Amino acid sequence: MEIRQSGSVPARPAPREYFSGSVWQQAICDPSDETALRALLVTFAPGGRTHWHTHPKGQTLVVTAGSGLIQRRGGPVQAIRAGDTVWIPPGEEHWHGAGPQTLMCHVAMQESEGGVGAHWLEPVTDAQYRGED
Amino acid sequence: MEIRQSGSVPARPAPREYFSGSVWQQAICDPSDETALRALLVTFAPGGRTHWHTHPKGQTLVVTAGSGLIQRRGGPVQAIRAGDTVWIPPGEEHWHGAGPQTLMCHVAMQESEGGVGAHWLEPVTDAQYRGED
Repeated sequence: MEIRQSGSVPARPAPREYFSGSVWQQAICDPSDETALRALLVTFAPGGRTHWHTHPKGQTLVVTAGSGLIQRRGGPVQAIRAGDTVWIPPGEEHWHGAGPQTLMCHVAMQESEGGVGAHWLEPVTDAQYRGED
Repeated sequence: MEIRQSGSVPARPAPREYFSGSVWQQAICDPSDETALRALLVTFAPGGRTHWHTHPKGQTLVVTAGSGLIQRRGGPVQAIRAGDTVWIPPGEEHWHGAGPQTLMCHVAMQESEGGVGAHWLEPVTDAQYRGED
């Protein structure tokens, strides 16, 4: 068993090619020969968000602090708040992030398929983020 | 996508055949045709703990509040605290729970294999729990 003590795992800026604004990621577990599961803690500063993307095996989110936004392609922008959980089915195009003026932290967990945990698409425009497009 | 709002998911007593003491479970996500992942929030009142068990595909824990204890068979009883994460490899016999006088909450996530997420063994004795055996 491996215990990673609080304070021992660095938070890193989320990759600029897949995220907009100020977003931080901290690893919880990584896929290996033994498991396909990846989990990480993600913190979105106000306005920060993912690009549009899908997950080959779906994704579960647990909002651990603050409040933010989530949208599936073609659906409304919806609020999510600390304590909420979200299941995103395989292949569903979506994005998630902070509110315009509120921070949001979530644990994200997804299984990878063939070593791939997400397929990344285009950025969320400001009009999409505001729910105007 | 399915959003489960905080307050909408009941906490249920953990099964008496696999847990000792006062332990509560709240579902985060369940295995389905689309995913092998199960995740749940578990709250152990002081003295509460799992029985000895293993996971066919391993398990990841994220301690979200309080502090507690964890032990792999043959190893020392170790403290875990809010913010710590733990990876338990497939087949490793172990238990986890609260401290004798402290509460512990964790998110547990594990993939199932053939529909089975855990193999359950005997209860943790008081002497084992105290690290005396």
